[in-house]
Amino acid sequence: MVTGGLGFIGSNVAHRLTSAGADVVLIDALVPNHGGESSNAPDGADVLIADIGAPEVADAIAGADVVFNVAGQVSHIESMRDPVRDLELNVHSHLRFLETLRATAPNAMVVQTSTRQVYGRPLYLPVDELHPTRPVDVNGVDKLACEQLHRVYADAHDMRTTSLRLTNVYGPRQHLHRDGLGFLPVFVRRALAGEHIELFGEGSQLRDCLHVDDVVDAMLLAAVQPASVGEVFNLGHPEALSLAEIARLTVESAGTGAQIKCAPWPDGLERIDIGSFQGDFTKATTVLGWSPRISFADGIASTIGWYQARA
Amino acid sequence: MVTGGLGFIGSNVAHRLTSAGADVVLIDALVPNHGGESSNAPDGADVLIADIGAPEVADAIAGADVVFNVAGQVSHIESMRDPVRDLELNVHSHLRFLETLRATAPNAMVVQTSTRQVYGRPLYLPVDELHPTRPVDVNGVDKLACEQLHRVYADAHDMRTTSLRLTNVYGPRQHLHRDGLGFLPVFVRRALAGEHIELFGEGSQLRDCLHVDDVVDAMLLAAVQPASVGEVFNLGHPEALSLAEIARLTVESAGTGAQIKCAPWPDGLERIDIGSFQGDFTKATTVLGWSPRISFADGIASTIGWYQARA
Repeated sequence: MVTGGLGFIGSNVAHRLTSAGADVVLIDALVPNHGGESSNAPDGADVLIADIGAPEVADAIAGADVVFNVAGQVSHIESMRDPVRDLELNVHSHLRFLETLRATAPNAMVVQTSTRQVYGRPLYLPVDELHPTRPVDVNGVDKLACEQLHRVYADAHDMRTTSLRLTNVYGPRQHLHRDGLGFLPVFVRRALAGEHIELFGEGSQLRDCLHVDDVVDAMLLAAVQPASVGEVFNLGHPEALSLAEIARLTVESAGTGAQIKCAPWPDGLERIDIGSFQGDFTKATTVLGWSPRISFADGIASTIGWYQARA
Repeated sequence: MVTGGLGFIGSNVAHRLTSAGADVVLIDALVPNHGGESSNAPDGADVLIADIGAPEVADAIAGADVVFNVAGQVSHIESMRDPVRDLELNVHSHLRFLETLRATAPNAMVVQTSTRQVYGRPLYLPVDELHPTRPVDVNGVDKLACEQLHRVYADAHDMRTTSLRLTNVYGPRQHLHRDGLGFLPVFVRRALAGEHIELFGEGSQLRDCLHVDDVVDAMLLAAVQPASVGEVFNLGHPEALSLAEIARLTVESAGTGAQIKCAPWPDGLERIDIGSFQGDFTKATTVLGWSPRISFADGIASTIGWYQARA
């Protein structure tokens, strides 16, 4: 089962699973302006359109061996505009989902996707899992609560949950035409269209971006590694590139000559910016045997190629 | 304004404030089996019976200079029985309350009571504010999210919030006849009645208990200290006593000859026990000028006396 299975990361997991011959059920609420799209579903997967917190999810869950719990709202700025909605989607629905799992599939392996946002502004780089968790916006608070609830259900109820803290992810099937899904889809959209890319401030903040295929690798490894239960793992990349460099490589791959411009921070956004980030993923390497295989230059080139082939 | 103002800590704040001549409004939902009781209200305070997340709270908030935000569910075990309810009371309602404050009293000083539960099982003692936050139950996850939302509203919206992480608190006006409000009211109730006190395991876990008057001191100091904004502070006590010693002193004060017995851990409870705890409150001493004044022996004696005078 993949929740958020019609979204960016969820659908990439689903495609990998169906390719490998798994029986796959996707759950997705297709929340407007989120990343979900019906066209992302792989052939052969069953699709249930529902909020993961809804009671009708119980029937679909019964018998699940592995649950990839990817559903969620990702927009930081939207979480500040409508914080109650973010809480409902990122915590309330997940708590109800955990209760449903506990009742109907208590032995399923549950791989939850968390985020480097739980750390807030890094006190040191690279950030390991022992770094304090001090999110800077409502979305980060809610994602941390969601992750911690998964761990509590492992510790207190013997469920088999594990969480992966993702950095910025890019690749095929990311919705490019909605804002609030991170800077990477905006860069890709604008590079493809030959439109200028705006960097707030000077674009000097570092990010260790991950290709979605590397993320899917980690999710599958976590699902079959018993030692992952009750643990959290950073996923990161040894390349920490500035936003300016990320923009440059994206434009170069697209070959459209899109301009890169610096612009002042929009109102309210600088306050929830976290500066530079790089994750220490030693624990994921040691316990899961995972490390990313795809450089940003290669990954963004193949990503751009994927979108250009479908334009 | 005091939320949870008919409960144990809230009503003690309210009594101190009315004694000092302040105009006080209490909000309390009188949630069944929580700590609230109408008889706890001091003379002269206005009382609004409402959930803090309800829209009608807005009128009462307008014009508030200081908000002591004490409302919440405190039962760990109840949070595992009905986790969605705990989320609603400890996070949802508080998020709505913060939104109401932002709209109607954005300049009010807000002192929120958090808990040492946010740390989970201590990795070292005494626990300072940099200790990782890894709660062991749903109630702890929710209380941490509540505290972090208060900080986010300070950082992102320029509101004047501060949070105090309390250890176990005892004193007058604590509801003695409901379970789920911590071990201290159970010890006091049983000592007063001459009934035996049960210690799970051997009762060797350490706790640095605080008399509610010391807590109220810290809350008032935090309310008038501008440097507290956006910060969290441990409140703790230099005396870390074993549960067995705490029980012994409580029984001794009551003079009823109540027996102290050891019992096996009830099902599910050991898993959410955190072992020994002692908080490092250096930051509160440095920034707020606070340290506890009341020893456990003195505090429990006067507490027992207070209840005996009202029996």
